Amino acid sequence: MTVSPFDHPLLSGLLGDEEAARHFSVEADIAAMLSFERALAEAEVEEGVISHDAGAAIVKALAAFRPDTAKLRAGVARDGVVVPELVRQIRAAVGRQYGEFVHFGATSQDVVDTSLVLRLSAAVEHIGLLLSENIVRFTGLEEEFGGRALMAVTRMQPAISITVADRIASWRAPLERHQQRLNEQSGRLLVAQFGGAAGTLDKLGDKAPAVRAVLAARLGLGNAPQWHSQRDALAEFAGWLSLVAGSLGKFGQDVALLAQAGTDVRLSGGGGSSAMPHKQNPVKAEALVALARFNATQLAGMHQALVHEQERSGAAWTLEWLILPQMVVTTAAALRLAAELAGQIESLGH
Amino acid sequence: MTVSPFDHPLLSGLLGDEEAARHFSVEADIAAMLSFERALAEAEVEEGVISHDAGAAIVKALAAFRPDTAKLRAGVARDGVVVPELVRQIRAAVGRQYGEFVHFGATSQDVVDTSLVLRLSAAVEHIGLLLSENIVRFTGLEEEFGGRALMAVTRMQPAISITVADRIASWRAPLERHQQRLNEQSGRLLVAQFGGAAGTLDKLGDKAPAVRAVLAARLGLGNAPQWHSQRDALAEFAGWLSLVAGSLGKFGQDVALLAQAGTDVRLSGGGGSSAMPHKQNPVKAEALVALARFNATQLAGMHQALVHEQERSGAAWTLEWLILPQMVVTTAAALRLAAELAGQIESLGH
Amino acid sequence: MTVSPFDHPLLSGLLGDEEAARHFSVEADIAAMLSFERALAEAEVEEGVISHDAGAAIVKALAAFRPDTAKLRAGVARDGVVVPELVRQIRAAVGRQYGEFVHFGATSQDVVDTSLVLRLSAAVEHIGLLLSENIVRFTGLEEEFGGRALMAVTRMQPAISITVADRIASWRAPLERHQQRLNEQSGRLLVAQFGGAAGTLDKLGDKAPAVRAVLAARLGLGNAPQWHSQRDALAEFAGWLSLVAGSLGKFGQDVALLAQAGTDVRLSGGGGSSAMPHKQNPVKAEALVALARFNATQLAGMHQALVHEQERSGAAWTLEWLILPQMVVTTAAALRLAAELAGQIESLGH
Amino acid sequence: MTVSPFDHPLLSGLLGDEEAARHFSVEADIAAMLSFERALAEAEVEEGVISHDAGAAIVKALAAFRPDTAKLRAGVARDGVVVPELVRQIRAAVGRQYGEFVHFGATSQDVVDTSLVLRLSAAVEHIGLLLSENIVRFTGLEEEFGGRALMAVTRMQPAISITVADRIASWRAPLERHQQRLNEQSGRLLVAQFGGAAGTLDKLGDKAPAVRAVLAARLGLGNAPQWHSQRDALAEFAGWLSLVAGSLGKFGQDVALLAQAGTDVRLSGGGGSSAMPHKQNPVKAEALVALARFNATQLAGMHQALVHEQERSGAAWTLEWLILPQMVVTTAAALRLAAELAGQIESLGH
Repeated sequence: MTVSPFDHPLLSGLLGDEEAARHFSVEADIAAMLSFERALAEAEVEEGVISHDAGAAIVKALAAFRPDTAKLRAGVARDGVVVPELVRQIRAAVGRQYGEFVHFGATSQDVVDTSLVLRLSAAVEHIGLLLSENIVRFTGLEEEFGGRALMAVTRMQPAISITVADRIASWRAPLERHQQRLNEQSGRLLVAQFGGAAGTLDKLGDKAPAVRAVLAARLGLGNAPQWHSQRDALAEFAGWLSLVAGSLGKFGQDVALLAQAGTDVRLSGGGGSSAMPHKQNPVKAEALVALARFNATQLAGMHQALVHEQERSGAAWTLEWLILPQMVVTTAAALRLAAELAGQIESLGH
Repeated sequence: MTVSPFDHPLLSGLLGDEEAARHFSVEADIAAMLSFERALAEAEVEEGVISHDAGAAIVKALAAFRPDTAKLRAGVARDGVVVPELVRQIRAAVGRQYGEFVHFGATSQDVVDTSLVLRLSAAVEHIGLLLSENIVRFTGLEEEFGGRALMAVTRMQPAISITVADRIASWRAPLERHQQRLNEQSGRLLVAQFGGAAGTLDKLGDKAPAVRAVLAARLGLGNAPQWHSQRDALAEFAGWLSLVAGSLGKFGQDVALLAQAGTDVRLSGGGGSSAMPHKQNPVKAEALVALARFNATQLAGMHQALVHEQERSGAAWTLEWLILPQMVVTTAAALRLAAELAGQIESLGH
Repeated sequence: MTVSPFDHPLLSGLLGDEEAARHFSVEADIAAMLSFERALAEAEVEEGVISHDAGAAIVKALAAFRPDTAKLRAGVARDGVVVPELVRQIRAAVGRQYGEFVHFGATSQDVVDTSLVLRLSAAVEHIGLLLSENIVRFTGLEEEFGGRALMAVTRMQPAISITVADRIASWRAPLERHQQRLNEQSGRLLVAQFGGAAGTLDKLGDKAPAVRAVLAARLGLGNAPQWHSQRDALAEFAGWLSLVAGSLGKFGQDVALLAQAGTDVRLSGGGGSSAMPHKQNPVKAEALVALARFNATQLAGMHQALVHEQERSGAAWTLEWLILPQMVVTTAAALRLAAELAGQIESLGH
Repeated sequence: MTVSPFDHPLLSGLLGDEEAARHFSVEADIAAMLSFERALAEAEVEEGVISHDAGAAIVKALAAFRPDTAKLRAGVARDGVVVPELVRQIRAAVGRQYGEFVHFGATSQDVVDTSLVLRLSAAVEHIGLLLSENIVRFTGLEEEFGGRALMAVTRMQPAISITVADRIASWRAPLERHQQRLNEQSGRLLVAQFGGAAGTLDKLGDKAPAVRAVLAARLGLGNAPQWHSQRDALAEFAGWLSLVAGSLGKFGQDVALLAQAGTDVRLSGGGGSSAMPHKQNPVKAEALVALARFNATQLAGMHQALVHEQERSGAAWTLEWLILPQMVVTTAAALRLAAELAGQIESLGH
């Protein structure tokens, strides 16, 4: 099944990004969930919530655990979330004596949200590298062609002559600000979610803060009060993803316009046509525009999901699942394509 | 890779629809494209554009054709569209003598758009059946519980007593109008696209209209002038998909609200919680709200794609690929879930 | 206060449409609400719900009625809707004896929704005329320049030569389909809303259907069961408005691209620049793109409002108020601008 | 003309915010534009670009300047922007001798964008105060009712008991993060735009950086390279506006749900109904949801405008005008309503 181009065997070659998509595979999700359960057991041993033996049994069982995915699928269809069935399977693997200590004090949302953040953390690192690579590429283009002349175009009409460096600055400067923005928001985004049934960690009593701190540290995430119904950091990150894709959409649109007459820019490796063999289509430039407009569209949905009622909104939460992974891959794909497109520029300006 | 929940092995059990998704697999897409190429060859034989021998060679080769998907993937990444590489492979399979008559007079967009319409035609049939099923379900609920009392709620406050039938009417009547709407727009939507390089079928001369008519008839589609840069029928259909999902989102929201106190509605098979075994969560009701808000979000993107510049906009066209299949599956999934949810209602009203 | 360009004394000269905007003035809204109350009183007299004397007193008072708008404003702030305070004022004007028969059996939503539909009916007529005018303009352009040559452009690259008529067809054909769509949906849209407190017209007993039929007839609207929580006809109409603006956005984008080199199209009266007196900016063409993208954006919100919970959702209903009038004016403005832009084309093609 | 509820004499009492809207009046816009022209003249005198006499003549004329708004309106319709006609009028007021030194080296976008930033600066201050007020209100509610019990609700079903303080934390904590976010992004947002015809300040030679620095300082704005085609700071700010409105939408939705049964929260001053005098509708709570969903919708449009082609995109720029002012007023109105709603809470929890 390949409803989304990001998952499509053919289209993902243009529109996807394998490294980013990898973090949203079912394997990566389950691995992250198991990391959560292990870190939780370890933290609860460390803080004396569960016994060393229970902890050891859980860690051992998790290391060898292989889920029954058919039952997980049925579990999602029934419970709306994979965790109840996953925990049931883990408990069975741990055995009767210690099974009840698996997932102790946690709730489904803790597992799902923390798994997401763990994988976003990896995706952010990948995207950050791609972002740097784009900046380097633009700097390289500036060094090579920056002093050449280019006709500025305002309101789709030729205006006055500028330099290629002036144009490149409009592509690179936003990316540098996006780096700054990512630094600012990472501390809000990459935070473990741990709140228990209704956010109060009711089963952990006065040990709750300490368990949460150890849990977060073991996962390499920030430690902060639970945020299960406060989705602002995710919506903010979605906005960042769309800012990046939008800036690259401008680059793509500019290249497609520059390529029209065939003299302002020379690109290697343009796309072919089935009807007109003479054509060299600026395929990656156009794909950048499509990806920018796609992410801009999605962003509205992530902000709709801010209306997350009460202690847990199944509706708003599920809406995020439908959107955020695609936005991450969109931005990664746009960065990959933009770097490739910059690399295809053989000549720019006059 | 499973970036989208519709393709995700676990999440698609709740949020996807296998039958609808099937039409967007790579196999279904290629099969539809091959149907186009065969019907085109047959039409061109029939109208004397290519020889019987050429046509027979093409039909024979297509019947045995197996694409090299790795090369197709590379072709999409290069050309932005799968057709140039696919046609190259088909021509090789047909052989030197007649290979040039494959895809004669057509362009990539003819193949991709007509393949889409062929598969939408199948999806529409599936969705139409699901729509009818929902109407039947609501009628059944009305027959069983329609005479009971229900407290109307306006602006989230109890108002006056109405009947269950009054409430059910607000769920069913929009679906009946959606049937009417689908009938009206099908004739605009299920139309073959055939225009050649720039929409003028320049290679077919005065035989162009006849070839197009035969092509459309062989594919079971409507015959109309090419619409490669006129995307209104697709945007209109996207709106219809969102209307359907939106109406079902209201049903889901109503059920979730009715289920709050535990007395207005009794549901079988609610979802379980990993932290609170006593809970019976209205999972499908919430999923319906999520799917409605997802499709509402996507619709904006399909309408952005109406700004389809000149004879073919790679940017606007690609944007449709990113969105429309997901909207189809969303609506099918919502219809499936709504029918299931209606079937879970064991009691409604007082 | 002029937060919206459609209301802005300066910007509305470019982006607004006076005739369409007129229907969303407070005067037009109140006049339509008073029409509803009069038609309701007359219908209730006709069907024997209220006495002739009561009806006469109401009709007389309405004819001379002047609202206290300061109190209406305070009423909206308090009640979320203008009707409770408006009805209070009308009742005071009618006097103690018959005041209670004003608005008898109706609720706020009946008045607000029917007032909206009455004004949409007028706006639709205006928009329909503008739509016809655009078709005429395109036909005129085709007659004048249709036989000339134009370079087709696919994926932003020159393709093969077509005729100007080919390009014009891509502008006009969608508009003709939009006419057909409007005809189809008008019967669903232009329908009176009358349901009383919770949609059951509980106060009118078995006279309810007859009163509703007379009310609708007197207002020149269709008669159908109340639809207070079924917003599909409004969302469908919003989709139509965006389809129209989107098609014109393609026209605008095409003209802006044609105007780039200065040889494919010659426009009279291009916009001036404060820094570059030599420029002739294709201002209206760009405004068409902006209006298309604006309406595409808004459409998502109208579809979010389909999740209209229970018998009346203050949240979803208010969301429509924030969006739909602007969409109507956007489309009217786009049609006005497109007709003007078509009129500015002094030469097209070669 | 009152197409937008934010400008509507009646609806703005509920949905608008006078103080925020004031900054988007035509008077405020022109006043800010004149400030730009004065500060530019002063900066150019200071840096020796124009003479003291020219500067004095400009400053004097600007002090007494009253625009001909009818001609400005016609100018916008023709030029797509008000500046060419405004500058023409200012030059006429300055007189033949020094008129040419008005607006020297600047372009329309410098004036329009800097005017926007000046007014956003004032709006941000207003919104910042409202944000603080909301935090204070929530703290007050916590002090009064924080220790009481509340039934947590997850997935629309009662879960376990929490405290009122737990719920209030989910309303207040995002607002505190929004304060932090605003601090971070203000330095990127509140920056003068000054680039001249195509962003290179070509007429100012080597004095360009100094003139820009003085101009920015005189206007109380940050000094940075021109950003005319880099719209990321505006899109980022739009995201912030939607984050704030979204968080308040959750508060509103929570209050509407709490108010359902009439026991969890007691509100003073609920809205009345024209049909059911007994009702107390949570009008402000619902309006908060509507405003949140409105801003979420708009945000997609602001991100579409990131695809700002070449040196100036009339299409993308105009799209911002249609959206951003409304987003600012939406957020201000939401903050005003949320503070009022918090003030209406007479009792919360048990």
